[in-house]
Amino acid sequence: MISYSLEDLSKHISATLIGESNQDFTGLNHLESASANQVSFIGSSKYTKLYAASQAGAVVINENLKHLVSGEIPLLLVPNADLAMAKLLSLYEPQSPVFETAISPQAYIHPTARIGADCKIGPGCYIGANTVLADGVTLYPNVTIMDECQIGTQTIIWPGTVIRERSQIGAYCIFHNNVSIGADGFGYRPAEDGSGLVKIVHIGNVIIGNGVEIGANSCVDRAKFDSTIVGDGCKIDNLVQIAHNCILGRCCIMAGHSGLAGSVTLGDGVIIGGSASIKDHTTIHSGAIVAAGSGVMGDVAAGKTVLGYPATDSRAKLKEWAAVRKLSKG
Amino acid sequence: MISYSLEDLSKHISATLIGESNQDFTGLNHLESASANQVSFIGSSKYTKLYAASQAGAVVINENLKHLVSGEIPLLLVPNADLAMAKLLSLYEPQSPVFETAISPQAYIHPTARIGADCKIGPGCYIGANTVLADGVTLYPNVTIMDECQIGTQTIIWPGTVIRERSQIGAYCIFHNNVSIGADGFGYRPAEDGSGLVKIVHIGNVIIGNGVEIGANSCVDRAKFDSTIVGDGCKIDNLVQIAHNCILGRCCIMAGHSGLAGSVTLGDGVIIGGSASIKDHTTIHSGAIVAAGSGVMGDVAAGKTVLGYPATDSRAKLKEWAAVRKLSKG
Amino acid sequence: MISYSLEDLSKHISATLIGESNQDFTGLNHLESASANQVSFIGSSKYTKLYAASQAGAVVINENLKHLVSGEIPLLLVPNADLAMAKLLSLYEPQSPVFETAISPQAYIHPTARIGADCKIGPGCYIGANTVLADGVTLYPNVTIMDECQIGTQTIIWPGTVIRERSQIGAYCIFHNNVSIGADGFGYRPAEDGSGLVKIVHIGNVIIGNGVEIGANSCVDRAKFDSTIVGDGCKIDNLVQIAHNCILGRCCIMAGHSGLAGSVTLGDGVIIGGSASIKDHTTIHSGAIVAAGSGVMGDVAAGKTVLGYPATDSRAKLKEWAAVRKLSKG
Repeated sequence: MISYSLEDLSKHISATLIGESNQDFTGLNHLESASANQVSFIGSSKYTKLYAASQAGAVVINENLKHLVSGEIPLLLVPNADLAMAKLLSLYEPQSPVFETAISPQAYIHPTARIGADCKIGPGCYIGANTVLADGVTLYPNVTIMDECQIGTQTIIWPGTVIRERSQIGAYCIFHNNVSIGADGFGYRPAEDGSGLVKIVHIGNVIIGNGVEIGANSCVDRAKFDSTIVGDGCKIDNLVQIAHNCILGRCCIMAGHSGLAGSVTLGDGVIIGGSASIKDHTTIHSGAIVAAGSGVMGDVAAGKTVLGYPATDSRAKLKEWAAVRKLSKG
Repeated sequence: MISYSLEDLSKHISATLIGESNQDFTGLNHLESASANQVSFIGSSKYTKLYAASQAGAVVINENLKHLVSGEIPLLLVPNADLAMAKLLSLYEPQSPVFETAISPQAYIHPTARIGADCKIGPGCYIGANTVLADGVTLYPNVTIMDECQIGTQTIIWPGTVIRERSQIGAYCIFHNNVSIGADGFGYRPAEDGSGLVKIVHIGNVIIGNGVEIGANSCVDRAKFDSTIVGDGCKIDNLVQIAHNCILGRCCIMAGHSGLAGSVTLGDGVIIGGSASIKDHTTIHSGAIVAAGSGVMGDVAAGKTVLGYPATDSRAKLKEWAAVRKLSKG
Repeated sequence: MISYSLEDLSKHISATLIGESNQDFTGLNHLESASANQVSFIGSSKYTKLYAASQAGAVVINENLKHLVSGEIPLLLVPNADLAMAKLLSLYEPQSPVFETAISPQAYIHPTARIGADCKIGPGCYIGANTVLADGVTLYPNVTIMDECQIGTQTIIWPGTVIRERSQIGAYCIFHNNVSIGADGFGYRPAEDGSGLVKIVHIGNVIIGNGVEIGANSCVDRAKFDSTIVGDGCKIDNLVQIAHNCILGRCCIMAGHSGLAGSVTLGDGVIIGGSASIKDHTTIHSGAIVAAGSGVMGDVAAGKTVLGYPATDSRAKLKEWAAVRKLSKG
């Protein structure tokens, strides 16, 4: 079991330590649930009232909240308790799942595929023709990578994920379970004989930058031509849809169940809230925020926050909601 | 082919039988589609007009609707036809898919994993280090269970499902296809050098109670610390997102495409309608109902029904909608 | 590398060629990104201004836009440039992923399964008891097909997809990654002892017609009894939910994240926009359109377009939205 002294913890987050303890600290927890060998935290004044009754062995607290608590539990004063907690969590990171052998004999690797040094490939994985894994790639069991793909160094792919032909994945990415990268985009044209719909061939691919994380059961479709692009550092949550020919800039965030229709462009640092959806061919410029649940039907200017369905400026939308409430009570 | 006499069926649902039949009944169907060897049902007065023309061999009907039908087809009178039908369906349950061998030689089982008595494990399954399967667990083909997990007795897991490290799954659960349990929660912090986003390590796990059913392609993320908890008897539909540190009480229902953001708490017996989404850190108290499509942005009191986006008391929301309709018509 | 002369391209789309070129054309691209060996296109007057500066080797253009451009780049005049582009894309379709052996020895095929001529089955696939694959079916790696299923001729199934017991899949279908077909519908009844919810057994199946395409991570549940039916030529995008006992007519389109609750009926040619959801037991009649993001709570007449949440006639809804905006501005 991983454990640290209070001094170790304090040093790791550059805290000012008030009080002392001989406890071995083995983890973190909420104020209400923490036990004597766990450290807890107070990052907002609404939690200070829980301090006195907590069983925690120590509490990380924002410096400016210190005057709101009094009691026996040692305090670790920091400018930002939430940030300090994020750092402490990394101290307690459990060991990753183990591989009995680095390259499982129960994986299928096409003879033309090239596997870099120090890769790990679990049972049930499939690696197609001419696919290239850079050094240090980890494929947990039952990952499928089709033909002509490239996977960058140190990228980690969890079970059930499928990467389709011609996809290019950057370095230091993490793809969680059952992700789908590079399936055909969704496009049809009416058959000339009126008999139905004819599939539009998607000859493009998907390009994912470095340091991208993609959540479980999310999808990124390949482009009609050219590439669907997810920029460096983007963080995509679970069950997210990114359609063909979308282009995401650097460090965008898309929360669970959000979706981009075809050919949507996101600038850098765009934040898309949970369950929000964006109309095809629109542009959300850098730094814009789309609030959870919104349905965006047009371009959004840089730095702007939009809300609602149809999405508009968030303050305007809040006024609309208030006006409707008032009207209905009328 | 499974078949029953009319008397058998009547006995099984404790019905009062009116009429008789020598038919072997081999299944159930709607009034319009049923044939002479199928039983049909009438649970609401809007279906009584279909009785006369039906080809069904017998009809289960609510006692209080009997006076609304007249004809030749034998009737099975019960207090609640829908409930009776649910019971009849269990008589006709087809055989589950077969295993040629109980533990497939094409499965990978880590030497330190422990497999209980009478487990079935299909080809392509992966069971990681120190994972423990209780007695009678069924893993259909291509299920992946990573390290240090526990799976309770009689639990059934369908193909493509991935259970990540340290998850604890109860007894008598059913997980459908391509479910993702225990992936990292979605949390980042700004890098101190301003270069982007740094991943927050999620050292917690997922705990699923007994008798929980989780639909295809749904996701339950693991906690930042402590546990994401799904209580006994919860029923989760397809494509549902349950984020890190959510806590669901007993017997909650979440319909398709619904989602809980991080640290949402549901009491007991909460019902979340399809495509509804719930803001992070909110609490939906016991017995509350969130109507389909709603976007909930704050706590919901016990027993209350909320509707709309933003979600409010359902009657208030219906008034708002009516007021807007009236307003737009001038 | 696939390449064509300008004359070849012109002939393929029956264009009127203005200008000439000795270039080998190796692909297609946007006006801004195209290089000298790529053909580009102008299907709307808003793109004509990009013509002069483009590096494209040729441009497909709507005949009626010709007078809006002047320059050196050869033109291919057609009635509809978007349609012509769709046809050109098929010329450049890359080779499909290769199979080292037609039927992988690393696939599991139950002894009672029947495999037609010219099928391809990748490593890690599972084919259950009594399942029948018609001629020319392609299963890419790690596809799972449970017992008693039928798969029609020339159907292609991509990795991670799971088809559950008793499903019947038509000919010429394409299922992308991690699709779930035939899991239990979502239905429960209160236990008589009040202890919780009892599962309703779903004895029905799924029937998918011919020429159906289903996107990554989408789900079609099996019926309580009878069948969930997806008609010929339907095109389903990613992350779509089709619940038990839904019936879709011919050539319906459902965009990403849309969902049908239980027992919804779609006529022929119905279009469901992205993230739209439809209440259980409703009927959307032939040719109706449900706009993106809508929440439909009642039947929709043939040919009608509905919008919003709650969804109503689209023009009426736009008036409601305008009225609210005006109201909020006082």
